[in-house]
Amino acid sequence: MKYDIDELKRVANALADAARYAILPYFRAPDLASDNKLPGGYDPVTAADRAAEQAMRRLLAEMRPDDAILGEEFGVSTGTSGLTWVLDPIDGTRGFVAGTPTWGVLIAVGPESGPILGIIDQPYIGERFEGGAGAAQMSGPLGTRAIKTRPTRSLNEAVVFTTFPEVGTTADRARFEAVASHAKLVRYGMDCYAYALVAAGQVDLVIEAGLQSYDIQAPIALIEAAGGIVTDWEGGPVHEGGRALAAANRDIHSAALNILQART
Amino acid sequence: MKYDIDELKRVANALADAARYAILPYFRAPDLASDNKLPGGYDPVTAADRAAEQAMRRLLAEMRPDDAILGEEFGVSTGTSGLTWVLDPIDGTRGFVAGTPTWGVLIAVGPESGPILGIIDQPYIGERFEGGAGAAQMSGPLGTRAIKTRPTRSLNEAVVFTTFPEVGTTADRARFEAVASHAKLVRYGMDCYAYALVAAGQVDLVIEAGLQSYDIQAPIALIEAAGGIVTDWEGGPVHEGGRALAAANRDIHSAALNILQART
Repeated sequence: MKYDIDELKRVANALADAARYAILPYFRAPDLASDNKLPGGYDPVTAADRAAEQAMRRLLAEMRPDDAILGEEFGVSTGTSGLTWVLDPIDGTRGFVAGTPTWGVLIAVGPESGPILGIIDQPYIGERFEGGAGAAQMSGPLGTRAIKTRPTRSLNEAVVFTTFPEVGTTADRARFEAVASHAKLVRYGMDCYAYALVAAGQVDLVIEAGLQSYDIQAPIALIEAAGGIVTDWEGGPVHEGGRALAAANRDIHSAALNILQART
Repeated sequence: MKYDIDELKRVANALADAARYAILPYFRAPDLASDNKLPGGYDPVTAADRAAEQAMRRLLAEMRPDDAILGEEFGVSTGTSGLTWVLDPIDGTRGFVAGTPTWGVLIAVGPESGPILGIIDQPYIGERFEGGAGAAQMSGPLGTRAIKTRPTRSLNEAVVFTTFPEVGTTADRARFEAVASHAKLVRYGMDCYAYALVAAGQVDLVIEAGLQSYDIQAPIALIEAAGGIVTDWEGGPVHEGGRALAAANRDIHSAALNILQART
């Protein structure tokens, strides 16, 4: 399958720009309303999510009419090119409605075998993490620079992020904690921003459960482009969702995977 | 005791500006070293903390030579004016070393009875929350605006933040969870940023334990200026540290306090 990676990067950045403009008027607006998608749960869908995904879909209809789309809010649009754009207009909606700056816009594109290009964008900070074709960069308040994951080798030197205890079953949480107990530092609640920090060489591991494909495809492409590795808890592909283990390098990935699997 | 609140605001902003310049060169720098203050714990003190507190102390020596200073890194300098500046150059050092944007510079000033002016500054985002004398504002990527806490009345509509499970005893954590179990949404790991979000009308409660005076004085002054209330878990003053309950208003404060006390 052939594709022009530079054109895909231009389109992905245009989508991220469009999402920023669509979302920011809603962020911390005093009258932000949130509907409740899941009876019994709290999964707010705001007007901002919908506006951002619609803006990105309009752009794709113009710029890449032959590609398929999978979006969190509006589902699947089929295509003929073999490429699919995977969009999460606001990953971390709970953080968004609470006013924190760690939610993000997730954009990925690739063939069925997995994403080849990913963006994590934080509109409020004005920060964008982008990776594909073996190169990754971040741009933001301090300018633009190339990023790569770091070479941490052992868990006792590792910084680990997770969305536990907010997400995941008790059994999954116990497996996470078996890994976390060996780590230098464990932090919580950063939404997709934690994956961006793996790519940026700040964080060694992110361990999460309960993911959808649109939650994880942009992190996979970004982190792999920066030198890291993202799998499920069995070491296999995770771009269709599930439980994710994102790691700065193969060594720290193996160290975490060994413990996750020992607890099965 | 007399003081010129406008002059104090100018000085506080000058300190926050100086801290930004001192800290940012270290944030996400590849070679950031962190020493370990506490054997057996992980309490990194970076060169950034020290540089920022020194920069603020130099300014105070010039601008407010008669005031006392209490700083996290360099302790107490006595004064004769009756006013003390309380400085935490980087609150949330763990977040800082992990690259997250939710640490902050905390600056407060007041007489022995408590702080009358507080700033929470986030240098990377370029965001500043400031309150005193009954007025509060935030400035940042989207401009400057007045802020106030929100009128949430019942726990089941409340957004609650905490640094549990990272900080605090098991018994304290159980009391926190008794409150959190009634809340609409509980979020973790935001460091001092959670207090700023109470002042900004985004969050209803922050519940924390194990605080020092320099951790809580700026949040107290900021949140009270924005219409909220900050006490210890018994409803008394907390500006000397301990366990804090920060609330958007008296009603939600009472609702949380009743549950915290019922578990004693």
